[in-house]
Amino acid sequence: MKKRLLVIHGPNINLTGLRETGIYGKETIDDINAEITNYAEAEGFDCEVFQSNYEGGIIDKLHEARTAFDGVVLNAGAYTHYSIAIRDAISTIMVPVIEVHFSNIHAREEFRHTSVLAPVCAGQICGFGKYSYILAIAAMKQLL
Amino acid sequence: MKKRLLVIHGPNINLTGLRETGIYGKETIDDINAEITNYAEAEGFDCEVFQSNYEGGIIDKLHEARTAFDGVVLNAGAYTHYSIAIRDAISTIMVPVIEVHFSNIHAREEFRHTSVLAPVCAGQICGFGKYSYILAIAAMKQLL
Amino acid sequence: MKKRLLVIHGPNINLTGLRETGIYGKETIDDINAEITNYAEAEGFDCEVFQSNYEGGIIDKLHEARTAFDGVVLNAGAYTHYSIAIRDAISTIMVPVIEVHFSNIHAREEFRHTSVLAPVCAGQICGFGKYSYILAIAAMKQLL
Amino acid sequence: MKKRLLVIHGPNINLTGLRETGIYGKETIDDINAEITNYAEAEGFDCEVFQSNYEGGIIDKLHEARTAFDGVVLNAGAYTHYSIAIRDAISTIMVPVIEVHFSNIHAREEFRHTSVLAPVCAGQICGFGKYSYILAIAAMKQLL
Amino acid sequence: MKKRLLVIHGPNINLTGLRETGIYGKETIDDINAEITNYAEAEGFDCEVFQSNYEGGIIDKLHEARTAFDGVVLNAGAYTHYSIAIRDAISTIMVPVIEVHFSNIHAREEFRHTSVLAPVCAGQICGFGKYSYILAIAAMKQLL
Amino acid sequence: MKKRLLVIHGPNINLTGLRETGIYGKETIDDINAEITNYAEAEGFDCEVFQSNYEGGIIDKLHEARTAFDGVVLNAGAYTHYSIAIRDAISTIMVPVIEVHFSNIHAREEFRHTSVLAPVCAGQICGFGKYSYILAIAAMKQLL
Amino acid sequence: MKKRLLVIHGPNINLTGLRETGIYGKETIDDINAEITNYAEAEGFDCEVFQSNYEGGIIDKLHEARTAFDGVVLNAGAYTHYSIAIRDAISTIMVPVIEVHFSNIHAREEFRHTSVLAPVCAGQICGFGKYSYILAIAAMKQLL
Amino acid sequence: MKKRLLVIHGPNINLTGLRETGIYGKETIDDINAEITNYAEAEGFDCEVFQSNYEGGIIDKLHEARTAFDGVVLNAGAYTHYSIAIRDAISTIMVPVIEVHFSNIHAREEFRHTSVLAPVCAGQICGFGKYSYILAIAAMKQLL
Amino acid sequence: MKKRLLVIHGPNINLTGLRETGIYGKETIDDINAEITNYAEAEGFDCEVFQSNYEGGIIDKLHEARTAFDGVVLNAGAYTHYSIAIRDAISTIMVPVIEVHFSNIHAREEFRHTSVLAPVCAGQICGFGKYSYILAIAAMKQLL
Amino acid sequence: MKKRLLVIHGPNINLTGLRETGIYGKETIDDINAEITNYAEAEGFDCEVFQSNYEGGIIDKLHEARTAFDGVVLNAGAYTHYSIAIRDAISTIMVPVIEVHFSNIHAREEFRHTSVLAPVCAGQICGFGKYSYILAIAAMKQLL
Amino acid sequence: MKKRLLVIHGPNINLTGLRETGIYGKETIDDINAEITNYAEAEGFDCEVFQSNYEGGIIDKLHEARTAFDGVVLNAGAYTHYSIAIRDAISTIMVPVIEVHFSNIHAREEFRHTSVLAPVCAGQICGFGKYSYILAIAAMKQLL
Amino acid sequence: MKKRLLVIHGPNINLTGLRETGIYGKETIDDINAEITNYAEAEGFDCEVFQSNYEGGIIDKLHEARTAFDGVVLNAGAYTHYSIAIRDAISTIMVPVIEVHFSNIHAREEFRHTSVLAPVCAGQICGFGKYSYILAIAAMKQLL
Repeated sequence: MKKRLLVIHGPNINLTGLRETGIYGKETIDDINAEITNYAEAEGFDCEVFQSNYEGGIIDKLHEARTAFDGVVLNAGAYTHYSIAIRDAISTIMVPVIEVHFSNIHAREEFRHTSVLAPVCAGQICGFGKYSYILAIAAMKQLL
Repeated sequence: MKKRLLVIHGPNINLTGLRETGIYGKETIDDINAEITNYAEAEGFDCEVFQSNYEGGIIDKLHEARTAFDGVVLNAGAYTHYSIAIRDAISTIMVPVIEVHFSNIHAREEFRHTSVLAPVCAGQICGFGKYSYILAIAAMKQLL
Repeated sequence: MKKRLLVIHGPNINLTGLRETGIYGKETIDDINAEITNYAEAEGFDCEVFQSNYEGGIIDKLHEARTAFDGVVLNAGAYTHYSIAIRDAISTIMVPVIEVHFSNIHAREEFRHTSVLAPVCAGQICGFGKYSYILAIAAMKQLL
Repeated sequence: MKKRLLVIHGPNINLTGLRETGIYGKETIDDINAEITNYAEAEGFDCEVFQSNYEGGIIDKLHEARTAFDGVVLNAGAYTHYSIAIRDAISTIMVPVIEVHFSNIHAREEFRHTSVLAPVCAGQICGFGKYSYILAIAAMKQLL
Repeated sequence: MKKRLLVIHGPNINLTGLRETGIYGKETIDDINAEITNYAEAEGFDCEVFQSNYEGGIIDKLHEARTAFDGVVLNAGAYTHYSIAIRDAISTIMVPVIEVHFSNIHAREEFRHTSVLAPVCAGQICGFGKYSYILAIAAMKQLL
Repeated sequence: MKKRLLVIHGPNINLTGLRETGIYGKETIDDINAEITNYAEAEGFDCEVFQSNYEGGIIDKLHEARTAFDGVVLNAGAYTHYSIAIRDAISTIMVPVIEVHFSNIHAREEFRHTSVLAPVCAGQICGFGKYSYILAIAAMKQLL
Repeated sequence: MKKRLLVIHGPNINLTGLRETGIYGKETIDDINAEITNYAEAEGFDCEVFQSNYEGGIIDKLHEARTAFDGVVLNAGAYTHYSIAIRDAISTIMVPVIEVHFSNIHAREEFRHTSVLAPVCAGQICGFGKYSYILAIAAMKQLL
Repeated sequence: MKKRLLVIHGPNINLTGLRETGIYGKETIDDINAEITNYAEAEGFDCEVFQSNYEGGIIDKLHEARTAFDGVVLNAGAYTHYSIAIRDAISTIMVPVIEVHFSNIHAREEFRHTSVLAPVCAGQICGFGKYSYILAIAAMKQLL
Repeated sequence: MKKRLLVIHGPNINLTGLRETGIYGKETIDDINAEITNYAEAEGFDCEVFQSNYEGGIIDKLHEARTAFDGVVLNAGAYTHYSIAIRDAISTIMVPVIEVHFSNIHAREEFRHTSVLAPVCAGQICGFGKYSYILAIAAMKQLL
Repeated sequence: MKKRLLVIHGPNINLTGLRETGIYGKETIDDINAEITNYAEAEGFDCEVFQSNYEGGIIDKLHEARTAFDGVVLNAGAYTHYSIAIRDAISTIMVPVIEVHFSNIHAREEFRHTSVLAPVCAGQICGFGKYSYILAIAAMKQLL
Repeated sequence: MKKRLLVIHGPNINLTGLRETGIYGKETIDDINAEITNYAEAEGFDCEVFQSNYEGGIIDKLHEARTAFDGVVLNAGAYTHYSIAIRDAISTIMVPVIEVHFSNIHAREEFRHTSVLAPVCAGQICGFGKYSYILAIAAMKQLL
Repeated sequence: MKKRLLVIHGPNINLTGLRETGIYGKETIDDINAEITNYAEAEGFDCEVFQSNYEGGIIDKLHEARTAFDGVVLNAGAYTHYSIAIRDAISTIMVPVIEVHFSNIHAREEFRHTSVLAPVCAGQICGFGKYSYILAIAAMKQLL
């Protein structure tokens, strides 16, 4: 039976491709989602992509993952740096979560260097644009 | 006329009993809610229990409490540690709020030792599992 | 063609006039909104006023402003002090945002002195009650 | 056989009722002790109340509790905030200790927000005046 | 009788228009002073503009304002960030003071985010170039 | 009727004159006490001098001062820097307390620059050796 | 030959008696200066009183003291908390300086608890209103 | 022509597989190097693996990479957290460097959460054991 | 004539052997004291062992050491981390003091890494259980 | 045409040679100024030396340098550590400024290690007594 | 079979006896090594002494100790305070390491009070000059 | 007899001229070394230039300087900011060391503002490119 993979995009990622293209590249989020889904399915996953600007929306989706998915690739956007509520959601569900970021968060403003989520995730991949997600899917395949 | 009591559970508490049972015990949140409601009504309260994973959802409910309830027992979960917005909601409504936690937050990670809500609550009770809520209801009876 | 102006009120501002009147004055938020709208229209703006207690709701509205408005006057309430997600929303959209506050945030509790939004806003106006919004509209007229 | 309960009052609590009555209420410590003892005995405890202004005196009494009591309700007063020696005494004895405070310590000066004792206590109850003790006795009954 | 308004420019502002024009615009301080005075007088104020590079000079002028002016618009320049002596002068005189800045100080170096003057001023307006002063005069009219 | 004055020496002051004479001078504590008492009586006070190395002992004595003395001159020695319990004792009793030190504590190690007692004392006098006490008695005469 | 004493008042002290009288009392600075001078002369000093709102003015006067005075009583006002330049002036001249304050600076805002001058002064006296100066003159008599 | 890839292992990594196998797995560093090399060559790289316990040794090797390699995968071990010298080496050479770690450094001791190298690397991958290197090689292929 | 050695045990050490035996071993404090005394006497010392849970009690004993002992081995327990009063006692008496601890305090909680006593002691020995005392006696023999 | 050089001495430097000669040497400031001027003129500069104890005085002089000098050698004395106003003056004028100090400021008190001026100066030379100025003039010759 | 003991001297210790003899005594490192070796062999150890100024050299030697020695006495010199790489080496090898220092590091500069190595060593002995090593060998004999 | 001068370049300086030429200029390190040597010899020094990327290598060379050189000009590169081991080497040898940097370290990243070496060097010169070395040689001539 196929493994089920959930990819979560956090706040403002819906506008990817429409803003600061120097950092994130020119493709729209829809282009990127198509690539992510294709790659995941080629790797044998059933894959769903979800986006929300709401902290609570991301928590609800993570809760759903507890029984409905085998692994989560999470780019929590700015919530990465302060949402202890999302952190608790991750440690509550018994599903591995890999943290990803388009940009190298450690090379940006000081306050983006800290991830309150990382201590409860399996690992962190950042700095490779959309390819961060692809690498995370590859990593998830190893983990599962 | 009966006093009206609102019990608010914050993020991730809906999964209580389904996770890290070492800290929170094995009962589900429904079991616990039944016990809370029974106790509150035995003590002469009309009691409503509410849960939300959304910071905004908790604020909306607290606003409702301004006219619809006489007291609030609040377990804001992880929002306890950073939600100044919930803090402002508490100080905006003219209804006493008692802060509770299942676990002893002061015995966990450093970042859980600080409550940004506590300064505007009547008091804090933590470390007694579901019984923290029962004690808070008893305390609320004294306050009102 | 008229410039389109969006005024966003953040969490708890819906209760303005119903609480701590010493700081915020006695008018209700509806009274204030009427005054803001009148002034904006007198200055030649199409003006919409929006309120939400949800961080995600404010982000969604800011995203909408990317194409639907020419300028934003934002009182993010308590989110001012920690919502990096709203900050990112502001820097994502290509529309000038002016930060306002009813009270002088620099004269209140220490944690209210810091605005994580200010670095990506055009300017900050605080301490003049509802008149902070009026001044921001005047300033926006200059900017556009 | 009856459970034995020890209630410890720390420094300056002997003057309760004689000072800042706005915070602590008007009853003397003797009135309060009578109420505590009555409640404890109604709940089936043998109850002793002890007060000392000496850090060493509180440690000695806690050591005595190791074999002579089944539970301790402790209001360590100002020592709460810096006495690592009392903390070590609590973790040395194998008897559950519940931390209480008359006032909501989290709503007072910054330096009163931290309890060095809390990490080794079962839980913390604060903000309910003398009733904090009553709640702690109720909680202790649950624990034992 | 006309209200008397004092506008104080702090250190280095005398060179405005001669330096970093990217931040402050190209007009000289004399051009700006003319505009400020015209606006103030159109709004019904008697208006005096004063500039000093001396902390003591600004204090002396503020003292003069105690009896000679009804309101002060103050851009204390770099003294904003450390002059407790100017802060004390503001709180000593019984005249409302509005803090202004050409640039958005919250968007510049970390050390410019803190104003030691703000807690004793009526409000703060920054980021609108010379127009910050105009807005402050409008705000002062409301205050008086 | 004569005013009653209590002079309290904290830890290690009993050895004054026997140690580091460069800082504290060569007289023994008995010599100094005699001088203090003579001066106080010449100024019309009944004067008692008390010394303890115990934090609890100093608290007990301060409690005694609540009804038995009209003013206290306190050199709490090292407890000055961390004894919140003594601070609470001072604010509990309704008797003015003046803080004194032989040495200029602000000119010694960093950790001696902070007095947790000073915020609840009438004033602080330090750096004048035994003469600090004499000045405090003169000051107390003014206060009473 | 008479000892020569210099009393320096720092910024804003010229308005003493005209402001926040709750903290500083109702007499004007002229009244206070008369009292100070009378006391100093009664104690056998030639006494000059000097006031400046300028950091540089205070430094110049301290330099003058190097050869023209035998002791200095200094209330540097707000400069106390940050003027390393005045600190250096004090350590440059070979004349004892006693630091005084009307109010108990340790009982006011956090930033007033630190004196950058204290480490190079002979001692500190604060909290006794104008009487702080009188005590300092008495102390100076002992020192010289 | 083939791209040349350099893989650098920092201090203590030579003992991998011989220590704390709970964190790093049971294979020896030789096993891992074989796998890394095989993967890199399968992906079309010429691959060299280097290990040194010397900060200077790693710097020398990075300098060599300036002309001899097209990309570097770097696990700097503990030097990650404090070697500004290695950081400068990375920013000196004009070759992309990807930072990798066996373990999730953000889930270990506080001092391991900060990488002084990350701000000058292309990206960071951590938490996937030896597979972190494989992912980095895949990422490097994308970059080049 | 024999050298006289004082061994001081601080708070909670009287319960050694009765608590957390993983850290401190299983022997009681009496067993340990016997071993310490035997070793000291074999090394030619007159040896007294003293224990107190009171900060003041330890200070009193240290004062006694000023004339009655030639050296002190001190395990101040938790007071190690905050008792500036004991620190002052050590620097007041003219007798060498060696600081010891059963456990390696640098390997425990962060707040146990700092000793306020160490700067005035001859040296520190920790981590060797009861053998820390034996080593300290050997070291003292060298010092005297 | 000759380059024009301005040398600015900050607060207390006028007393050089009259104080702490261990640090600064025995020559008076006049001797040193003569040497500086001679050297500068030998190197082909027109040289003016200026001293002020006033922060505002130094700012005024720096402003003058904008058009009247080609380079500035600045020893801002204690203002080095906190005068953001002087920093702004330096970045306002378009003339290179070299920071100098008699002593090695990095080897003195902690608060002297930080220069708020350095980030806007061309370079820093300290620790060589009067020779620091000579070196700065040599450096300025290179820069211009 | 004899136990094998490794003694490691870190950076600058090779010059012991040639520098600051007030702190470290007058013997050369060769004299000290002879004494250490003699003592160790008298206690039944095979003993090797090693010195390196290279962080990497110390790590290499510690790695060698994994199989070639039964215990290590380590004076890592200045590396004690920042070498996480040496710390990791210690925790990688399965051999007990005792940390020693000639001087009492807790009595020197603030930055020498922290040992990043201590948390992974068996214990720490400091302040007894060369005798610190002797005590560590005695302690090692107990441990093995 | 000629004075012997040692010039030490720390990590990455060997690549000077090959990297970020905006900061360091375009000449190679060999060009610069030639200039340095020429200048030193013109000034009458025997001059050796040394470079190492190894902390231990720099320490070894400094030790050699103890007997083989009369003065050292040291650019420790990144080690400047954390190598306490190099600091100790400098204070161990009895030879004056002058710290230099190509760039103005105080104008770069925050972590480059602090030099752990400066407190034990004679002085610091930074910001003048290769000319920093020339100035240091001139300064050394004065010192010797």
